[in-house]
Amino acid sequence: MENKISLQKGVVVGMDVGGTDIKCAVVDGRGKMLKRFQRPAVSKKNDSLILKNILQVAQLAKSWARAKKKEIHAMGFGIPGIVSKSGVVHRSPHFPAWVDYPIQSELSSKLSLPLIVDNDANMAALGEGWLGVAKSWENYILFTLGTGIGGGIVIQRQVFRGDSGFAGEVGHMVLHKDGFSCACGGQGCLELYASASGIEKISPFSPKKLYQLALSGDKNARKIFNRLGENLGAGIASIVNILDVERVIVGGGLSGAWNIFRLSLQRGVQKHIYPTTAGKIRLVKAKLGNDAGVLGAAKAAWDLSLKMEEK
Amino acid sequence: MENKISLQKGVVVGMDVGGTDIKCAVVDGRGKMLKRFQRPAVSKKNDSLILKNILQVAQLAKSWARAKKKEIHAMGFGIPGIVSKSGVVHRSPHFPAWVDYPIQSELSSKLSLPLIVDNDANMAALGEGWLGVAKSWENYILFTLGTGIGGGIVIQRQVFRGDSGFAGEVGHMVLHKDGFSCACGGQGCLELYASASGIEKISPFSPKKLYQLALSGDKNARKIFNRLGENLGAGIASIVNILDVERVIVGGGLSGAWNIFRLSLQRGVQKHIYPTTAGKIRLVKAKLGNDAGVLGAAKAAWDLSLKMEEK
Repeated sequence: MENKISLQKGVVVGMDVGGTDIKCAVVDGRGKMLKRFQRPAVSKKNDSLILKNILQVAQLAKSWARAKKKEIHAMGFGIPGIVSKSGVVHRSPHFPAWVDYPIQSELSSKLSLPLIVDNDANMAALGEGWLGVAKSWENYILFTLGTGIGGGIVIQRQVFRGDSGFAGEVGHMVLHKDGFSCACGGQGCLELYASASGIEKISPFSPKKLYQLALSGDKNARKIFNRLGENLGAGIASIVNILDVERVIVGGGLSGAWNIFRLSLQRGVQKHIYPTTAGKIRLVKAKLGNDAGVLGAAKAAWDLSLKMEEK
Repeated sequence: MENKISLQKGVVVGMDVGGTDIKCAVVDGRGKMLKRFQRPAVSKKNDSLILKNILQVAQLAKSWARAKKKEIHAMGFGIPGIVSKSGVVHRSPHFPAWVDYPIQSELSSKLSLPLIVDNDANMAALGEGWLGVAKSWENYILFTLGTGIGGGIVIQRQVFRGDSGFAGEVGHMVLHKDGFSCACGGQGCLELYASASGIEKISPFSPKKLYQLALSGDKNARKIFNRLGENLGAGIASIVNILDVERVIVGGGLSGAWNIFRLSLQRGVQKHIYPTTAGKIRLVKAKLGNDAGVLGAAKAAWDLSLKMEEK
């Protein structure tokens, strides 16, 4: 599908709705961001206000394309939260007002364009496959390390969504069954041991400060990152043992500390991985950084427009 | 593909190679076992002896079909161990002599028939989908509880094998990261907490004896099964959180104690499952018992023969 996309005329719009900012770009068939827009997400408590902001940014993109005489084929939206196949946000840690919120139909009724809505980590995974570190990979898993841990599972270059669309909640695999209680209602979830909030559970310092301390050689800071790496490695080994998907990408804000925890991460993976797979696994840092979500949403929009064309 | 199979003339042969016995059946397009064969697997240490026994059983099936004037389209073999897509057994806990053993090409050179080789749990999963509890399911996961824990992941009615064919090693997801050491080299693997060997780690009684004690109301025996159920439930919740495959089958010898651990299993699942999925999950006991493997191997053989016909 890649080659077909690069031959397309016109553009798509990719949008990455984050807890803080809404990022958006008008993107051509080769993945070039022709124009970018960014706005604060603003309200966390009022669902119609967030929608209003998203729509404003979408209109900016539409106006720009109209002025440049470029046809928009479709729009893609990456949303932080649990998004069903039918485009309903069931829960969003960033936007607690969104509970079973039918965002796809809300957007569709306002923007008269084909559009696709999915979880932000799934979009980032698509982005890395289109233009990032996973360009030549058929199957891979992205772990996004931030406040929590998100994930995207890509099989045969398509996001694997499972029965209802909720697949990829890799942060909620159980790693220490009798461990910390999790906000999800569970116990011992991976994200309690390998995310920013996991760090805040066991350190008085912010992840950023802790990273600086680790860089300057602080032993305790290094120990905390080592533990994070080993826990994440055990989680990655678990999922590779289950799925035998041998390529794993680590992204998200906390992957900025990759050089600090990389070795302990590899140690954790090798400790827990099934021997048959030990020599096969490839573990890499994400490449697209903050643009992964926007570019992935654009990729999803391109895939949608090609699928509609085929019909 | 089901309907196509039931319309086929001729037969296939399904074989389930176990640590103790080799089970085999000649199976028609509707899943009827026209003739069964069973032989001891005999040698665990000499790979050529196991092969000889498998070939003997296959020849019995061929002779029977010839006498009955039935054409054998293909043969399927379920093997206990890690089997690659190319039909190499990398490791087999039951047959330590098989290390990177190219069983598919060994069998092919002796039996002049199309054949398919896969892990026994994958075959059992196919069997349950063809004729068992998963008849109407597109996506499901089978956990086989025995000495260890095996698994088969079925997506769109096909076994999901991953990059090399090793997918489904659900017994080696990490559940208690700092827990028991596992024979696989890892630590805290699910199968150490929810299999027969897991029971033997914490009880002086065999699983069978413990089951009888639990039935008679022995509190300690019930406690051990409750713990097993909760651990298995946490493992199942983990994989459902990752894959959002909402239908799970529990099979294998230890599933005979289903009525004893069912409630604690459900409790474990509900404790650890992501809230969005909690109401959707279906958790059932396998239906085909000891025949799942043979019937699944026959189903794989039918799928292979139809695929070859299409070409």
